[in-house]
Amino acid sequence: MTRQELIDNIKRKKSYLCVGLDTDLNKIPKHIFEEAPDDPVFAFNKAIIDATAPYCVAYKPNIAFYETLGYQGWIALEKTIRYIRATYPDQFIIADAKRGDIGNTARMYARAFFDYMDLDALTVAPYMGEDSVTPFMEYPGKWTVLLALTSNKGSHDFQFVSDTGGKRLFEHVLAKAQEWGNKDNLMFVAGATQGSLLADVRKIAPDNFLLVPGVGAQGGSLEEVARYAMNDDCGLLVNSSRGIIYASTGTDFDTVAAIEARNLAEQMAETLKARGII
Amino acid sequence: MTRQELIDNIKRKKSYLCVGLDTDLNKIPKHIFEEAPDDPVFAFNKAIIDATAPYCVAYKPNIAFYETLGYQGWIALEKTIRYIRATYPDQFIIADAKRGDIGNTARMYARAFFDYMDLDALTVAPYMGEDSVTPFMEYPGKWTVLLALTSNKGSHDFQFVSDTGGKRLFEHVLAKAQEWGNKDNLMFVAGATQGSLLADVRKIAPDNFLLVPGVGAQGGSLEEVARYAMNDDCGLLVNSSRGIIYASTGTDFDTVAAIEARNLAEQMAETLKARGII
Repeated sequence: MTRQELIDNIKRKKSYLCVGLDTDLNKIPKHIFEEAPDDPVFAFNKAIIDATAPYCVAYKPNIAFYETLGYQGWIALEKTIRYIRATYPDQFIIADAKRGDIGNTARMYARAFFDYMDLDALTVAPYMGEDSVTPFMEYPGKWTVLLALTSNKGSHDFQFVSDTGGKRLFEHVLAKAQEWGNKDNLMFVAGATQGSLLADVRKIAPDNFLLVPGVGAQGGSLEEVARYAMNDDCGLLVNSSRGIIYASTGTDFDTVAAIEARNLAEQMAETLKARGII
Repeated sequence: MTRQELIDNIKRKKSYLCVGLDTDLNKIPKHIFEEAPDDPVFAFNKAIIDATAPYCVAYKPNIAFYETLGYQGWIALEKTIRYIRATYPDQFIIADAKRGDIGNTARMYARAFFDYMDLDALTVAPYMGEDSVTPFMEYPGKWTVLLALTSNKGSHDFQFVSDTGGKRLFEHVLAKAQEWGNKDNLMFVAGATQGSLLADVRKIAPDNFLLVPGVGAQGGSLEEVARYAMNDDCGLLVNSSRGIIYASTGTDFDTVAAIEARNLAEQMAETLKARGII
């Protein structure tokens, strides 16, 4: 999907919501196992997708939750992706995999996620530098979503290591990666929990889309994200996983997920209006 | 596997070789596809393992090469691991996956690699800090292998970012991670291509095992690795992947792989003798 198509989808749906598919067998409603004993993960995902698709522009399966089920998890993941592609072709699909390895290995991951699975985007870790990142940029229409400033407590361990000029590691990552990619194939992860630091991210990456986790279960504020990080094209995909998909664990889980997604989308529409984007 | 068991295996086999199973359908011998059309990846791995097991103490499947084949790759990976476990129970098995994500996701990856697949060790990326690393340390007898100083060109992009006190990022990682783990559950990745910098790694992590990639195809020298990074317990697992498994692409691939592995093991035995370990 191109940058312009993504922006058009955001304007049309008045939402920059990404729904995280962190599907955990220990958390999905019990009745799913009776209704779909062969593949409860896919059955859950399908119901969540059908319920939330009107309110979001992207889905983000978190690969860990599928890998933990072995090859059966991988099958459920592939089915989920094919279902979204076939049923909601305007959705942007991000594999949240945080991969990062030397060049020849990065090329294999790129094949896995962009060729074999035909996803739109993949989250990538920056620690190993250029040759671990650029192989993902060789696919036209595909996106690299590089970790910059993450939403978790551990982000403070290394991402703020500061050089003699006061430049912090996450700022090095933001600057350096723009030598490798551009606003048409490179996004950055910036956590909603980082508050006004999002403005520091925007300073270095004014035009790149930001994938923003941390709203909801992790405590980040949508209002702050919009204030500090929205640009004239919106430039944001804000993810919520647990706050939507596990909002209810009863038989009404899909209806409640839809309500949560709609609530977030309505708040997002307000921020888009305030900025004059819609 | 405990640290002492690993050291005992190294002394008994006079080798600290780890064979990397970077199995690529585009590189394995053509006759394998005729002999084992249903699962050429497993057939190749099995032959390589049978040929090299006498000369190595560890195997390291690189997960990217399996993921690129979708769920069928995952099945081949699981079969490979079960085969090693059943046939060569003294081998240490490392999933080279370089995972790294927030706490609740890291716990899912830990389940995937330590519970579901029962591997001995997993490579982990440090960028996201403590809560992305410590969930792997909660499994007794299992190992976290944290990226510190990698073997690739891109290692120079961020790993050498230096703070006001002259401490480089990879040194921050080495120091900080030892607050989370210890020599019994924490190893570090340090590339053979980094030459005398391996001595800087050893200064900060004198007792931890180092997993050393980069010998062979990437150009690192085994002699240098031993000189700068061996400690009194050996403290090294030196990996070779392409230099062994693709040494021949003919029907003699397994015999030639065995010769390459034996050559490396013989060089390793010399370095162990020189240090008085065997």
